[in-house]
Amino acid sequence: EESKKFNSQQPLTPPENFAPIIRTIYRSSFPQPNNFTFLKKLKLKSVLCLIPEEYPQLHQDFLKHENIKLFQLGMSGNKEPFVKISSDLITEAVKIVLNPENQPILIHCNRGKHRTGCLVGVLRRLQKWSLAIIFDEYRKFAAPKERPMDQQFIELYDEKAIIRYAEENNLLPLKWD
Amino acid sequence: EESKKFNSQQPLTPPENFAPIIRTIYRSSFPQPNNFTFLKKLKLKSVLCLIPEEYPQLHQDFLKHENIKLFQLGMSGNKEPFVKISSDLITEAVKIVLNPENQPILIHCNRGKHRTGCLVGVLRRLQKWSLAIIFDEYRKFAAPKERPMDQQFIELYDEKAIIRYAEENNLLPLKWD
Repeated sequence: EESKKFNSQQPLTPPENFAPIIRTIYRSSFPQPNNFTFLKKLKLKSVLCLIPEEYPQLHQDFLKHENIKLFQLGMSGNKEPFVKISSDLITEAVKIVLNPENQPILIHCNRGKHRTGCLVGVLRRLQKWSLAIIFDEYRKFAAPKERPMDQQFIELYDEKAIIRYAEENNLLPLKWD
Repeated sequence: EESKKFNSQQPLTPPENFAPIIRTIYRSSFPQPNNFTFLKKLKLKSVLCLIPEEYPQLHQDFLKHENIKLFQLGMSGNKEPFVKISSDLITEAVKIVLNPENQPILIHCNRGKHRTGCLVGVLRRLQKWSLAIIFDEYRKFAAPKERPMDQQFIELYDEKAIIRYAEENNLLPLKWD
């Protein structure tokens, strides 16, 4: 009978490229309405969207209903030769993500590959991960569209300002437990 | 000065294919001694190793020193046509992983691709994820050595026994928070 209860549930559909980054910080592609049931289980306090287009009304309604705060930082991706991810916007994004009041938080862009991948790479740098492993994680999620420019962005990002901010606000190190 | 402190730290090297699965359940390839500093940060209660070979003495010493319990279930991978992952061993593995007393727990095999991927796939089925997303996650970590047999194993695994066990012991649903 218990097994019947289990089997009667509909399958859950996480968004493509969904994964936990650390404890209560998650990443994904742009959620679709059929992902909302899954997202509810994460008990999110906020969502950080990294694309400039207006958030769809259906999604705004969902967030409002679930009492989830929306942060939106409209970024352009690293498309050579003239469009570059803004280092300042990534810093703003990190401030939002590190704030415990905003967690659990879901970070997403469109595909969950490039802009999200750059932000996650910077978070891993703040965890002091070696670049080899940071790039390996980046490529897992960006495949088959890995961008050398994104990996270079992660490597060259100047973390001094965010480190100072994080240490003043006691936000680092990020805890696994 | 605080930034100097940050910069003076050595980079951390997580094992290849390291990732959180959910909260306090992690996956990776076979950890190397240069990963031990990173692993300490996870405050593991246990490690579940899925390969049959004897655990190296250096690793045993590390686990003992850190007070981490070792579980070992020697599995053969899905190598066609005659070698198959044992469904019973996967069930035993799930029992170990779901037990809150063993968490935080790290699951690993050799590459963190196939045996670990099958176990993670079964855990995702217990979370009621759709197969499409389960396979997508499997392939991220198994690339470029994805095995159709592994994905078929995940799909055909009979979860009745483990569901009954989990419900009797109040181990499901797996919580994100």
